[in-house]
Amino acid sequence: MKAAIIGASGYSGEELVRLLSRHPNVQLAAVTSRSLAGKLVADVMPALRHAVGDLEFTSSDPQELAQRDDLDVFFLALPHGVASEFANPLQEAGKTVIDLSADFRLNSAATYENYYGHPHPAPHLLKAAPYVIPELADDAWKAATLIACPGCYPTSIQLPLVPLLRAGLIKPNGIVINSYSGVSGAGRKVAEDFIYCERNESMKGYCMPKHRHLSEIEEQLEKAAFADAIVQFNPHLAPMSRGIATTIVVKSNGASLQSIYDCWNKMYSDKPFVSVLPSGTYPDTKHVTGTNRADISAVYDSRTDNFIITSAIDNLLKGASGQAVQILNLKSGFAETAGLV
Amino acid sequence: MKAAIIGASGYSGEELVRLLSRHPNVQLAAVTSRSLAGKLVADVMPALRHAVGDLEFTSSDPQELAQRDDLDVFFLALPHGVASEFANPLQEAGKTVIDLSADFRLNSAATYENYYGHPHPAPHLLKAAPYVIPELADDAWKAATLIACPGCYPTSIQLPLVPLLRAGLIKPNGIVINSYSGVSGAGRKVAEDFIYCERNESMKGYCMPKHRHLSEIEEQLEKAAFADAIVQFNPHLAPMSRGIATTIVVKSNGASLQSIYDCWNKMYSDKPFVSVLPSGTYPDTKHVTGTNRADISAVYDSRTDNFIITSAIDNLLKGASGQAVQILNLKSGFAETAGLV
Amino acid sequence: MKAAIIGASGYSGEELVRLLSRHPNVQLAAVTSRSLAGKLVADVMPALRHAVGDLEFTSSDPQELAQRDDLDVFFLALPHGVASEFANPLQEAGKTVIDLSADFRLNSAATYENYYGHPHPAPHLLKAAPYVIPELADDAWKAATLIACPGCYPTSIQLPLVPLLRAGLIKPNGIVINSYSGVSGAGRKVAEDFIYCERNESMKGYCMPKHRHLSEIEEQLEKAAFADAIVQFNPHLAPMSRGIATTIVVKSNGASLQSIYDCWNKMYSDKPFVSVLPSGTYPDTKHVTGTNRADISAVYDSRTDNFIITSAIDNLLKGASGQAVQILNLKSGFAETAGLV
Amino acid sequence: MKAAIIGASGYSGEELVRLLSRHPNVQLAAVTSRSLAGKLVADVMPALRHAVGDLEFTSSDPQELAQRDDLDVFFLALPHGVASEFANPLQEAGKTVIDLSADFRLNSAATYENYYGHPHPAPHLLKAAPYVIPELADDAWKAATLIACPGCYPTSIQLPLVPLLRAGLIKPNGIVINSYSGVSGAGRKVAEDFIYCERNESMKGYCMPKHRHLSEIEEQLEKAAFADAIVQFNPHLAPMSRGIATTIVVKSNGASLQSIYDCWNKMYSDKPFVSVLPSGTYPDTKHVTGTNRADISAVYDSRTDNFIITSAIDNLLKGASGQAVQILNLKSGFAETAGLV
Repeated sequence: MKAAIIGASGYSGEELVRLLSRHPNVQLAAVTSRSLAGKLVADVMPALRHAVGDLEFTSSDPQELAQRDDLDVFFLALPHGVASEFANPLQEAGKTVIDLSADFRLNSAATYENYYGHPHPAPHLLKAAPYVIPELADDAWKAATLIACPGCYPTSIQLPLVPLLRAGLIKPNGIVINSYSGVSGAGRKVAEDFIYCERNESMKGYCMPKHRHLSEIEEQLEKAAFADAIVQFNPHLAPMSRGIATTIVVKSNGASLQSIYDCWNKMYSDKPFVSVLPSGTYPDTKHVTGTNRADISAVYDSRTDNFIITSAIDNLLKGASGQAVQILNLKSGFAETAGLV
Repeated sequence: MKAAIIGASGYSGEELVRLLSRHPNVQLAAVTSRSLAGKLVADVMPALRHAVGDLEFTSSDPQELAQRDDLDVFFLALPHGVASEFANPLQEAGKTVIDLSADFRLNSAATYENYYGHPHPAPHLLKAAPYVIPELADDAWKAATLIACPGCYPTSIQLPLVPLLRAGLIKPNGIVINSYSGVSGAGRKVAEDFIYCERNESMKGYCMPKHRHLSEIEEQLEKAAFADAIVQFNPHLAPMSRGIATTIVVKSNGASLQSIYDCWNKMYSDKPFVSVLPSGTYPDTKHVTGTNRADISAVYDSRTDNFIITSAIDNLLKGASGQAVQILNLKSGFAETAGLV
Repeated sequence: MKAAIIGASGYSGEELVRLLSRHPNVQLAAVTSRSLAGKLVADVMPALRHAVGDLEFTSSDPQELAQRDDLDVFFLALPHGVASEFANPLQEAGKTVIDLSADFRLNSAATYENYYGHPHPAPHLLKAAPYVIPELADDAWKAATLIACPGCYPTSIQLPLVPLLRAGLIKPNGIVINSYSGVSGAGRKVAEDFIYCERNESMKGYCMPKHRHLSEIEEQLEKAAFADAIVQFNPHLAPMSRGIATTIVVKSNGASLQSIYDCWNKMYSDKPFVSVLPSGTYPDTKHVTGTNRADISAVYDSRTDNFIITSAIDNLLKGASGQAVQILNLKSGFAETAGLV
Repeated sequence: MKAAIIGASGYSGEELVRLLSRHPNVQLAAVTSRSLAGKLVADVMPALRHAVGDLEFTSSDPQELAQRDDLDVFFLALPHGVASEFANPLQEAGKTVIDLSADFRLNSAATYENYYGHPHPAPHLLKAAPYVIPELADDAWKAATLIACPGCYPTSIQLPLVPLLRAGLIKPNGIVINSYSGVSGAGRKVAEDFIYCERNESMKGYCMPKHRHLSEIEEQLEKAAFADAIVQFNPHLAPMSRGIATTIVVKSNGASLQSIYDCWNKMYSDKPFVSVLPSGTYPDTKHVTGTNRADISAVYDSRTDNFIITSAIDNLLKGASGQAVQILNLKSGFAETAGLV
């Protein structure tokens, strides 16, 4: 199978290059970027010098790419609002498209406009594109040819919460979520706020109370709960390169801590990329960085009748590129872990 | 005025040495440590080489210290459970004692035993020792000769919350607090969990749901609210040396964001060590590190009727040694900012 | 005495604001920046919120500033090539100017052009401006009204080497210098190479073999040695915000390690801002960060007949703004340490 | 092929577990540790939870291990002085032993005693054990059954220098080497000097002028040069978890920069784990961390007739466990990169 990465100039794009260049079942056949066309990938991503040979960035013309017979699957690592420029012609040409942007994550074009500030560029594709966290989606998505990869924060939140909401073990209202992201979550953004001396030794919140990922979080939690789920989502920047830790406070629906764990174990015991940690062991971003794994755990506070649920993922892997490759693996019938361990 | 620091081997002790060695109204006359007696302070705290001359650690005999006529005020930078060994004889000898440990922070000996795991060593002193965040305490405390300095997390929480609870602007129940501490919060603790490679690039929760500071937080919030205040307190370790950031989700009691700000501005406009930031500007640990200042801010989420309140302090200054010196300044009639800017 | 900081938008400028706003003998009366004019200093430098009141950035017109009777001393924190625009009219108006840029550090306009890539903008001022590391300069400089502050790397190098070269204890040829700078050494530079994820967890050399500071290093070492001193200078970026560590390999001129220490002790025993550490104790940037102190030390290797000399300073204090204030103190007859401890 | 890791409790041991657990040609069949016997590897190395299943630490009895028919190759990740306890019986039992300690790196037992402070525990094995940097060793080593893996600093130094010394392009005398290591270079050492707050934001030298690795560096450089090579080696700790950067100043032997590059290109153009970077591009630890690659580069300074050679490796991979696996691959006829990309 031959793959192309469209818009590979950022950190997620770099992780995709890393993963696909060593994938046993995939050949990385094209890497495109409007700004980098003509440059060697090895020069732009020096960490991958040994892995990419003389692969070169090519230009990013959607129509042209759609006509190429030698490319089977396209990973879109583009900013929101731009992905549909590519998704449209690629879809029409019968290509498989795995989109890492926010463009196809929501069901509602109105919600998209509310959170992203511009009308959805291709609302007709919203229904066609399943939103896929592989551990949580049912198998129907594998037939789709346009797949929306979830955001990094939402993945760290849904993996622990969705099974519990589906099972009715927790209350869907009043959920409070605090998340902490490494600086790569902002991408390779060159702005004063992201230079080393501003972020080093700095911990702070941002974008409260309406971070864009909130739209996707609520839409998915509501689906799982068959009920409204208005959550408080507080994102923070932590002084580290990678990783997301999330801490969730949620009311028990009468369920015990044991039933939370039973639910998780039933859901995840045979999943290679979710580890359920014993209560009292706290997920640590350091332990998941560089892997496609999510660690999840919970404690119960009888004083408040709350569960405190914690999770950790690598924002660039399980939160982006690793999950995208996992999606490709499952869709293509490869081993789920191919290229990911 | 001549001051002694008892048990100065940790990071808070080092900050006290730094502050007092340059304080315009205080002479740092003794620095004690059982383990370091006989060593030069300059050798143990090389960052202070230029400031401490040939000051030497002396031994820590409580009775002996109590008899020294040349010492007026004692800062106790000791582990909990040990401070009262010193507080007792020093009190009896008429000395002023400013205690940075947890030993005199609580009103209730039972709560102390519940959280600290051993009976309170000097319950008769609990009532005598006011708990002092200077911006929040009324002036009566200045007459006391044994003063309890609040913990680092509690300071970052009470500065924004106490005025609002007193004014009835927020609901005292259902408060969710997430805090993020630099690694110095654990003191100069030599344990595998605190070596560089374990904490660097790592973000994680710990001690949920019952961190020891919770006892102090709830006791004080209840005092402010004249009501029960059962809070969910989630402490985390962030990969940085210093600083605490806190994010609080609290229900409005019908109050507007403007009334929150009015309340804070009334409380803090003439206070040198609290800055009220505009809504939408988030306190950043980097901006308070090295200062005795707390930055606080709030946003309102109409979807949830919650305020999200954020704060930041330096855990070793406003969260420990800086606040202790501020207490000394106010008690002694010095300028509140003496030695602190 | 009333001071102005010209071009205060960078990290050195911020340190100057911090130091001068609490200086006992100086009033910080103006802070200028072309790009920031009209903004509150407290907003641009939130770490100084408590210290700067409602001080505002003003515009930077050289002629206008030169006419202001209420300003006595001007600190220029400008890029090289620009400082003379201000130095000229300020000099003519009889003001004292302390320049932190590279513009007046060299004696030779030709060397300036060779290293900085453009003709010197005011060669007639080169001779007028003494180059002042206070511990090393003789007192004649105090009469000057235009003073060149040395660069950060050069300060870390000259403090240990100059006394030894003057005393003939080491050979001036074949010196190899490796220096390691925190990222603030690049200023508040917004470029991809300086965003957090690029510099965090990264150690690398740069600008070899001809970093601009080499010109100043060699000119000064040659003055001290009365001989040619062609040095190999290897600067590196270290993943930290502040601090410079320097490691120098230099041939003994027949001198013993003891004589090195005797020379240093004679030179520095009464200097508040240089600490001579015992052989085998290595200067650590962490111990000098936030101070105006330089730590220096040496070991001898009998196998190679080399001394290995190590030093550490805070690049923004002893390497820039702290030294500038020390210069002001000494020139004005204030205590050398005023505002610096 | 079945492999055992002996003494796997440190960071190098953990990297070996990571590499071997996903190696296509090797089964990781035993992981031993005296202190951890009986514990799950997944609990001790939570970063590898997804990779190690229910693998358990077993005890470390040398005789017993030597008798196990199901183990073919042993990686010794033990402290120096202990490795020979295992190497002896394993050798006698005909097993292959790849030793990551310093015990078999030197030819001379006298040098070992001089640098390591105790007599060599098995001097008869010194000659039997080739010292193998695969890119530099001739193929004879593949017949050996006890192989010494080089140290981390020495690998970063020999890869650039050995080819040049062999070709006579540089002078073997007067070499000055400065190296910068991430904190994991000290292993999982629990000591005050290695806790987070002491190492974060800290750059400093240590162990000058006689770090233990100097013995191995000089022995190997002399072999390459057929001449004495007394070098100045200055190791430093940098505030990062992983990586070594090295900067070498060496006199040209009349050779041009081009001839340096020609020599390197001839040596390394077909080697998967050495990248020769263009002059003026500086190796960066960030670009090699997580890989088994060494990046090397050089500039020439006509003023001093020196080459300044820079290199970077991951101290735990090319500097330890990655190189050990590369050795296994080559010895066993696997692809050189098996399990390493």
